[in-house]
Amino acid sequence: MPIAYITRRERFNAAHRLYSNDLTDEENLKVYGKCTHPNWHGHNFELFVTVKGEIDKKIGYVTNLTNISKLIKELVIDKIDHRNINLDVDFMQGKIASTENLAVAIWAELEKPIKDIGVMLHCVKIQETENNYVEYFGE
Amino acid sequence: MPIAYITRRERFNAAHRLYSNDLTDEENLKVYGKCTHPNWHGHNFELFVTVKGEIDKKIGYVTNLTNISKLIKELVIDKIDHRNINLDVDFMQGKIASTENLAVAIWAELEKPIKDIGVMLHCVKIQETENNYVEYFGE
Amino acid sequence: MPIAYITRRERFNAAHRLYSNDLTDEENLKVYGKCTHPNWHGHNFELFVTVKGEIDKKIGYVTNLTNISKLIKELVIDKIDHRNINLDVDFMQGKIASTENLAVAIWAELEKPIKDIGVMLHCVKIQETENNYVEYFGE
Amino acid sequence: MPIAYITRRERFNAAHRLYSNDLTDEENLKVYGKCTHPNWHGHNFELFVTVKGEIDKKIGYVTNLTNISKLIKELVIDKIDHRNINLDVDFMQGKIASTENLAVAIWAELEKPIKDIGVMLHCVKIQETENNYVEYFGE
Amino acid sequence: MPIAYITRRERFNAAHRLYSNDLTDEENLKVYGKCTHPNWHGHNFELFVTVKGEIDKKIGYVTNLTNISKLIKELVIDKIDHRNINLDVDFMQGKIASTENLAVAIWAELEKPIKDIGVMLHCVKIQETENNYVEYFGE
Amino acid sequence: MPIAYITRRERFNAAHRLYSNDLTDEENLKVYGKCTHPNWHGHNFELFVTVKGEIDKKIGYVTNLTNISKLIKELVIDKIDHRNINLDVDFMQGKIASTENLAVAIWAELEKPIKDIGVMLHCVKIQETENNYVEYFGE
Repeated sequence: MPIAYITRRERFNAAHRLYSNDLTDEENLKVYGKCTHPNWHGHNFELFVTVKGEIDKKIGYVTNLTNISKLIKELVIDKIDHRNINLDVDFMQGKIASTENLAVAIWAELEKPIKDIGVMLHCVKIQETENNYVEYFGE
Repeated sequence: MPIAYITRRERFNAAHRLYSNDLTDEENLKVYGKCTHPNWHGHNFELFVTVKGEIDKKIGYVTNLTNISKLIKELVIDKIDHRNINLDVDFMQGKIASTENLAVAIWAELEKPIKDIGVMLHCVKIQETENNYVEYFGE
Repeated sequence: MPIAYITRRERFNAAHRLYSNDLTDEENLKVYGKCTHPNWHGHNFELFVTVKGEIDKKIGYVTNLTNISKLIKELVIDKIDHRNINLDVDFMQGKIASTENLAVAIWAELEKPIKDIGVMLHCVKIQETENNYVEYFGE
Repeated sequence: MPIAYITRRERFNAAHRLYSNDLTDEENLKVYGKCTHPNWHGHNFELFVTVKGEIDKKIGYVTNLTNISKLIKELVIDKIDHRNINLDVDFMQGKIASTENLAVAIWAELEKPIKDIGVMLHCVKIQETENNYVEYFGE
Repeated sequence: MPIAYITRRERFNAAHRLYSNDLTDEENLKVYGKCTHPNWHGHNFELFVTVKGEIDKKIGYVTNLTNISKLIKELVIDKIDHRNINLDVDFMQGKIASTENLAVAIWAELEKPIKDIGVMLHCVKIQETENNYVEYFGE
Repeated sequence: MPIAYITRRERFNAAHRLYSNDLTDEENLKVYGKCTHPNWHGHNFELFVTVKGEIDKKIGYVTNLTNISKLIKELVIDKIDHRNINLDVDFMQGKIASTENLAVAIWAELEKPIKDIGVMLHCVKIQETENNYVEYFGE
């Protein structure tokens, strides 16, 4: 059967700040600029999750996108939407709250559960603003 | 010469319903939910066709995008726009009207004619709603 | 207190066809072109509902947008999403399924319930495609 | 000379939380739901400022949009971008950090300076998410 | 019958430059900055034409949007698309090629022909970039 | 460390015309149609630059996107924005001003400087209109 890639977009609105414990406040400011502002700032994050698999002949789907959507909501959105990425999100504890780290952490949350429903996680893409986004392919 | 990928977007507005003849009505409802509603629903589909080829030194194009656009219109859009995907579209007869199957069927329509004008079809992407899309690369 | 306008967007995917019982099939075709295709077509409709009111000093809201969203979902989206506008939607029975008529009918559904929560319905806007939309202000 | 309306979009990424000092924590939770989360959340806010005036015959502009853009940056964006609306923004002190109050406060910041360059402020629109926005016309 | 507003979007890609014959080159540079660059620059302009009228009971339309679209194409797009606004466009001769002047000139082109098909021109809106647009209401 | 891809969008508004010195005017017209119009036309070009690299453990970034943005501005945007691609842009001299050639030329401008800050250029994508874009991966 042909192999297709299907992508689901979900959204979350969250606060964060870029701050590394390995750096002094001065160094943090130098590296992160306004993104390290101590009182936080935030974004409307857009999360695109792409999975890959054979099209199921019987139902015409790679997999029911509703199931992918549910997984993303339970494992990611419910933990991060209208929250503070640095303070509130279990899978970001101890990590710098960069979009790169967020993409890798979301991959780690989703990889096995998506495999368990018979498809492969292919890409986690996070659009932070209209001018920048990060893609992680599990490499 | 360098190899580039060029993408053309076309749009079509169509009705469809997800329904498998291999399933009972009850099973169809369980699998497809509201998407199997017997009186149809519809979408503004966006179709992105990507072709790949060397840049022609003399004209600076991989290929004249006008030709790609014409092929897509003749072979796809004219058959599906303002139509019912299940009932009216020759290349979808006997297939479940999922976005995955649609992408594969459009690939089959376009692959040879695009090869005949000297470039390779690389990807057929269909955006069904702002929250989901399917990509097919001919695998 | 200052008066502000707040707008909520909701979406629905539906099938429809333009057809007037007052016209012959030939006349319908002449007036509506491909939009009268008997096997239906469909759209991703975007509905923008704007309400107007004084900003409540105590809560800083014109009204809780969650309540507006709930009303729209119960009175409009649940009846029309993944349905056939001509066949399935009670508030469109006996009407030509044009975007204009749809906007007026949605206004009629929402006007009183929105008034009952203390604000004024100001505009119902329906975007049918990226190239056309209708606005109705209750005039 | 003809009268035209010109609109400039600027963007800011900020954290906020909805919280009223006149309400108990329990009441805040009931009114604002997840938007009152104590550790903040945030948005990519889009700010649209519309001014109105006669087209200047000599230069063909209502006014040089560069000047409007500068005013918005100095009086609004520089104070709010990558900041916390509740904690950091002078013109929001003592106010509930709702989009409605934000639109009114930004109007108050801009009205006179825009008048001083010879045009009239017509509308402050703030898009908070793709699903909701607020407009304030100075009423 | 209810009164509705319908809007049609059309697009054109054109070159232009801001330059006033009443100003020296130095003054032009001071007023228009990079927009007066002598070798031209260009935009993907989006034109939104809004007309207003009673909904026709027999056909459910304010007017057939196809007719509006045809008028816009014949009277505006065919003259300006893939052209130079300063050099090639009859209705812009002798005018500074600002978006404001363009909106007024397009209004003048469309007002009577739109009236002749029984509806009223309400607004000409031109989006020049994602950050700025002009609206003209015939005032 | 995990490898991620980060993308920065920048925009430029420029005039151009498609014209090959190897073709007669008649042939140019046949190949390029309205795009060869001698008085130029223009676009709001969107440029997406994707770089690839390991996530730096200490700062959580593949690289500081501010640096990528600065490089793009200095090496590309400052030379092409509000200019004529055929006449004004050093890195397009002697080349047909197609989007394909533009993507390859921008790659050549950026490849080494991006390598010098420790990451790999992965893709240059140019969106010319909402209906077409070109991608170049250095092949």
